Amino acid sequence: MDYMEGERDLLRIFIGERDKHNGKPLYHGIVDLLRKHHFAGATVLRGIMGFGASSKLHTDRFDVLSLDMPIVVECVESATNIDAVLPELETMVGGGLITRERVRVVLHRPALPT
Amino acid sequence: MDYMEGERDLLRIFIGERDKHNGKPLYHGIVDLLRKHHFAGATVLRGIMGFGASSKLHTDRFDVLSLDMPIVVECVESATNIDAVLPELETMVGGGLITRERVRVVLHRPALPT
Amino acid sequence: MDYMEGERDLLRIFIGERDKHNGKPLYHGIVDLLRKHHFAGATVLRGIMGFGASSKLHTDRFDVLSLDMPIVVECVESATNIDAVLPELETMVGGGLITRERVRVVLHRPALPT
Repeated sequence: MDYMEGERDLLRIFIGERDKHNGKPLYHGIVDLLRKHHFAGATVLRGIMGFGASSKLHTDRFDVLSLDMPIVVECVESATNIDAVLPELETMVGGGLITRERVRVVLHRPALPT
Repeated sequence: MDYMEGERDLLRIFIGERDKHNGKPLYHGIVDLLRKHHFAGATVLRGIMGFGASSKLHTDRFDVLSLDMPIVVECVESATNIDAVLPELETMVGGGLITRERVRVVLHRPALPT
Repeated sequence: MDYMEGERDLLRIFIGERDKHNGKPLYHGIVDLLRKHHFAGATVLRGIMGFGASSKLHTDRFDVLSLDMPIVVECVESATNIDAVLPELETMVGGGLITRERVRVVLHRPALPT
């Protein structure tokens, strides 16, 4: 992994917690894909409520407490590396939203050995 | 709902978990508003610590464990649709921060029927 | 604190939950730093999975359940105020990623007294 500086792309993938890929959670599959492509990192956030292409919100409060909460997978990488994963990512995501925007990397530092 | 492509606006609303609107949590009211306006989706994230216009951080650790954690509501939509909800949104938000930025929609796909 | 309007910088700090600073969690230290500099606010989000400069993902699922989940600290401030904290922030962050991007502040309103 080369350490990053300057302008990079922030990719954000909005899916549902219950979405599956090859029998396991889709967000696990996405993280595996990004690692296979030697991405610098990725963060998976789990929402507490939401609706969209992938997850439906019902008025029944039991439903809100269900396990289909929204998931956001985020990663910061070069445009080239992101272009390289998009075709496979698009085949994996059944329903969802993917956005891309430019960000400036201020600091990217490897963890100190512990 | 029309599926989105190209440039859109990412709206992010930073409020507190205990903020209320018409007797229910403000973030519920915001999600209802976005659904009423046929937004493509929304995600509600709950932080584990924070401070700001809406939520105060005290040094007492019991307070940090309280139920007034920061909430971020995110949605991606056309500038026109976001302009249309902002006036009502501004009357609902007692204290908080709303930001807006341009993002590129790479993929927006409906969920497959299950 | 002056209330913000117009263009501001969104600073996002990606670290690990177990990262420490002066014997306490690094994200606590970062929040304290931002408060000391009178930042308008900050939000700390905790992911459910991730990998990167600071946190490593192993295939062992016990590891995924560990307490070293990814942390994202977010704040929106003037470029001047962010420039002022970056040097100290860079000494605090052992391993991680910091990004910066421009956002437009649509609303910034103090909480009503309760």
